[in-house]
Amino acid sequence: MAELSHATVAAFVDDLVRAGVRHFSVCPGSRSTPLALAIAAHPGAKLWMHLDERSAAFFGLGLAKASRSPVALLCSSGTAAANFAPAVAEAFLAHVPLVVLTADRPQLLHDSGALQTIDQTRLYGSHVKWSVTLPEPDNSPEVSRYLRAVAGRAVGLARERPAGPVHLNCPFSEPLVPKDGWVAIPPDPGLAPRPSVELETAPRALAADQVERLLDELSGRRGVIVCGPQDDPGLIEPLLKLAEALGFPVLADPLSQVRGGAQDGQPIIDAYDAFLRHEPVAQELAPEVVLRFGAYPTSKPLQTYLERCLGARMLVVDGDDGWPEPSHRGAIFIHAGERNVCEAVLQAQGAAPTRSPSGWLEQWQTINRRTRSAIEEHLAKQDELFEGQVFAELARLLPDQAAIYVGNSMPIRDLDTFFPASERTVRFFGNRGASGIDGVVSSALGAAAAGGNRVVLVIGDVSFYHDSNGLLAARRYGLDLTVVLLNNDGGGIFSFLPQATAMNGVTFELLFGTPHGLDFAPIVQAYGGRHQLIRSWPEFRSAFGAAGDRGGLTVIEVPTERRRNVTAHEAVWEAVVACLQAPQLAGEVV
Amino acid sequence: MAELSHATVAAFVDDLVRAGVRHFSVCPGSRSTPLALAIAAHPGAKLWMHLDERSAAFFGLGLAKASRSPVALLCSSGTAAANFAPAVAEAFLAHVPLVVLTADRPQLLHDSGALQTIDQTRLYGSHVKWSVTLPEPDNSPEVSRYLRAVAGRAVGLARERPAGPVHLNCPFSEPLVPKDGWVAIPPDPGLAPRPSVELETAPRALAADQVERLLDELSGRRGVIVCGPQDDPGLIEPLLKLAEALGFPVLADPLSQVRGGAQDGQPIIDAYDAFLRHEPVAQELAPEVVLRFGAYPTSKPLQTYLERCLGARMLVVDGDDGWPEPSHRGAIFIHAGERNVCEAVLQAQGAAPTRSPSGWLEQWQTINRRTRSAIEEHLAKQDELFEGQVFAELARLLPDQAAIYVGNSMPIRDLDTFFPASERTVRFFGNRGASGIDGVVSSALGAAAAGGNRVVLVIGDVSFYHDSNGLLAARRYGLDLTVVLLNNDGGGIFSFLPQATAMNGVTFELLFGTPHGLDFAPIVQAYGGRHQLIRSWPEFRSAFGAAGDRGGLTVIEVPTERRRNVTAHEAVWEAVVACLQAPQLAGEVV
Repeated sequence: MAELSHATVAAFVDDLVRAGVRHFSVCPGSRSTPLALAIAAHPGAKLWMHLDERSAAFFGLGLAKASRSPVALLCSSGTAAANFAPAVAEAFLAHVPLVVLTADRPQLLHDSGALQTIDQTRLYGSHVKWSVTLPEPDNSPEVSRYLRAVAGRAVGLARERPAGPVHLNCPFSEPLVPKDGWVAIPPDPGLAPRPSVELETAPRALAADQVERLLDELSGRRGVIVCGPQDDPGLIEPLLKLAEALGFPVLADPLSQVRGGAQDGQPIIDAYDAFLRHEPVAQELAPEVVLRFGAYPTSKPLQTYLERCLGARMLVVDGDDGWPEPSHRGAIFIHAGERNVCEAVLQAQGAAPTRSPSGWLEQWQTINRRTRSAIEEHLAKQDELFEGQVFAELARLLPDQAAIYVGNSMPIRDLDTFFPASERTVRFFGNRGASGIDGVVSSALGAAAAGGNRVVLVIGDVSFYHDSNGLLAARRYGLDLTVVLLNNDGGGIFSFLPQATAMNGVTFELLFGTPHGLDFAPIVQAYGGRHQLIRSWPEFRSAFGAAGDRGGLTVIEVPTERRRNVTAHEAVWEAVVACLQAPQLAGEVV
Repeated sequence: MAELSHATVAAFVDDLVRAGVRHFSVCPGSRSTPLALAIAAHPGAKLWMHLDERSAAFFGLGLAKASRSPVALLCSSGTAAANFAPAVAEAFLAHVPLVVLTADRPQLLHDSGALQTIDQTRLYGSHVKWSVTLPEPDNSPEVSRYLRAVAGRAVGLARERPAGPVHLNCPFSEPLVPKDGWVAIPPDPGLAPRPSVELETAPRALAADQVERLLDELSGRRGVIVCGPQDDPGLIEPLLKLAEALGFPVLADPLSQVRGGAQDGQPIIDAYDAFLRHEPVAQELAPEVVLRFGAYPTSKPLQTYLERCLGARMLVVDGDDGWPEPSHRGAIFIHAGERNVCEAVLQAQGAAPTRSPSGWLEQWQTINRRTRSAIEEHLAKQDELFEGQVFAELARLLPDQAAIYVGNSMPIRDLDTFFPASERTVRFFGNRGASGIDGVVSSALGAAAAGGNRVVLVIGDVSFYHDSNGLLAARRYGLDLTVVLLNNDGGGIFSFLPQATAMNGVTFELLFGTPHGLDFAPIVQAYGGRHQLIRSWPEFRSAFGAAGDRGGLTVIEVPTERRRNVTAHEAVWEAVVACLQAPQLAGEVV
């Protein structure tokens, strides 16, 4: 049996670092010792230690999203590795590059009753781009060369679009540390600062005839651009230029990144979720062509609008070669880089696009502006702690260069409705690959660990509870995170669903309302955070300001009530309808 | 598209209940609505609601272990289902019957960018006995009949040895509730109280020539029986009878269930972990034949003893048709029911086994008795809060019919060393399928939910932190659980491993010690539990008594120190060696 070579392990980790992995989210364990030691010893590796693998994996996910670079995870063998599964699925669907390292027992301990030995082969099923069980790292030149090559390949594949997780299962035989003591092996300073294997991926670029077809589909039509969740800040400028050239409104999902750094006059539509609920407006704004970027948009009214206008041509641009169109209407799928599509259409020689008919874009902008005003006026008249208002407040309070991470279920939807486009540069994060409520605290802390931005997490109480273990990282690493905890004591979104009225209240509360009655203050304090229960908007504003000044972890809890939250939302939508039906609007639109 | 029939869903749940599922561990979600409603409405189903799927699954696992009957899990689609993965792996390896119901989006929403849609096909890989995606439950007789049949089949397969989890993936199309309101559909009182499909499995029984071979291997030899972790209380009596007939000692793993209800004179050896560390004794006690039952034993000294005596014949009885022999020495594997093996050998007509050579069993019993005394005398001289002593205390304090659930890593090992066999009936639980530190709190609460026994959980701080979410079930359902929390502020077991001395202290603490500094009192209190930090054994005893009287959740925290814990263990082993080397022993043995 070949002997474990710590030099070979160190070289493997060194190549991960050379290939671009800076951050390693690591959990304790014996079987993972060789890798953990090599990571701890590498001057280019930042090691983040976590005690809960589920939180560790989501922390890595948030860090990879915020840093836009691959992050490695490491855990011991057994169910530890299964705890990575939720974040791996999210990373696969959200195209987040992760290098998932799971330590394993060697083959000769499998299927034989050895401890902490599960079947880790293809443990993450179809939710990884590549899964391989590595040979044990002995000191033979062949294995050392192979492992270095695997490191570069794994990082390259994790990054290559569609980015995503790769799984390297790493068996180690005992002894896991040398008998005469372990000594750190520094990276060879004589080597070039590159991994032994690199990957260059040629981008897809539209051919001339494809650009022409696109131009033909888009020119001179009543068209809209829908930009769903996407993470590339570099897309915004060409996309808005294209929209301006075409005279198309850009319906900007909050996670499209379009709502940050917005400038006056740009064709950004941010209130569609409110006004497309109003059927006459949705009909009046029926498009002839829809050009989509990013994932499927979050807004249900927008989804309904898109699914109803079956007469319109739908063009779905997906640089991740995906198929993000759950309505299965007729569509043209365009597998090409999103920036390339925008730039190619704009630059098409001798065939610049003609704009949409006069008044089309202006009609959208007018309705959008009036809707925003109606929402703002409505909110200004209320002073109750309404969940939607949190986002209107944050839109004013967030400093430039801040990042907002939103939980799934209600926060992402309220962000959509209540957070207008702003000239301030804000990054928007959410786990919308699988849209789970799990791991959100850790994801936000991972984003905070990337540094550079003030990160604010807005999250509901069930999701906060679900990943309260994640708070340990805030304490351990002194991370700066402001959490706005919307506590309605249970699952708020269900009150908006047909379930809320289809059964008696007892059954509804049992299965969907699920009140827990938790007091989060002591939990937050146990993790070294400051907890503040607020009772008014002035208190909220001052708590938010103080949290930023103080740094560290602050949880600002906004207590709300689930049923009241529904009627408060309905009141907003009624105010919007009232404004849309007002005669001035008809005048303006015509 | 066929319409969802709630009557068909109710019939499916009804057949799960008729087939023997009494408990359903359920998490909130929209997609799982039809199943959740049917479960809530069924008078024979007990619904346990949880907000964290990982905890919910382990709760179901503990409930299934303690009730020795299949438990169903239910969650919504997406990463919710991935959170079940750790408990499913544990259940598969530990042979615990679970029916895992995962709601799913219908096929036409897959691979198309729909929300909360991951690939749930074979989500648990090789860690389930059966995995199938069900048809949507419409009202056709074919589908209704099929789903009823699947229910009986799933429960039958989950129970059939090797028991384990089965996975039924359940897609549902909207609307998930009828527009005119949902009405509970009671089970048809006219039906027989049986499921439409039942499974009868004929047990394996040894043929006469196989019994003869066994007799031949076992008779008149210096043999030992090793009983590893196993859950069948019915095995103990025939196993001890066989041991007595053969004159073999029974080396009884704490999870073998042999240590509870022990009677004077039975050949139970419970101190092997201490005395087999002493090489001369291990050599003197080298066997000619080893008869093994249950999973591979926990004790490292026992493992070493078994792996060294290569000259001995090894017989491994596994009624789960497994291969629990990680040392890969020569062995005879016997795939037959364990009780059948014991009874067949005992009853072999005209060929009753001859006993081991005179003095063999007595030698084991003498050494065992002396070792136990040495440990007890050593502990009696100490009054520090030593982790091992907790188990000696519990051995005295646990009432008859109590159950002890032990965490992995150190608690199971200290249980092995310090918890002697006792005439009181005690059930012993641990998650030794994959031996993870995850989900242990929830597993113990699941065992408590089964009712009937006082359940005491002994757990380390990292494991307690890992599943602190599980505590919500204690609060929600007023479950009675006494937790003895051994808090050494980090990963205590690593101080016993070669890692502890192979590197500098800073690196060791970073990667293995992993102190967290958590104050668990406020966390326990937030979940409605009583927390008591104890400083002495009298305090421990009084806290333990009060916890039992009071009921509900009590966490008795025993603060210890990791390095000191190692030297305190070493002192015990030294005391054992001293006693084994004493001249009286030599006299007694000879």
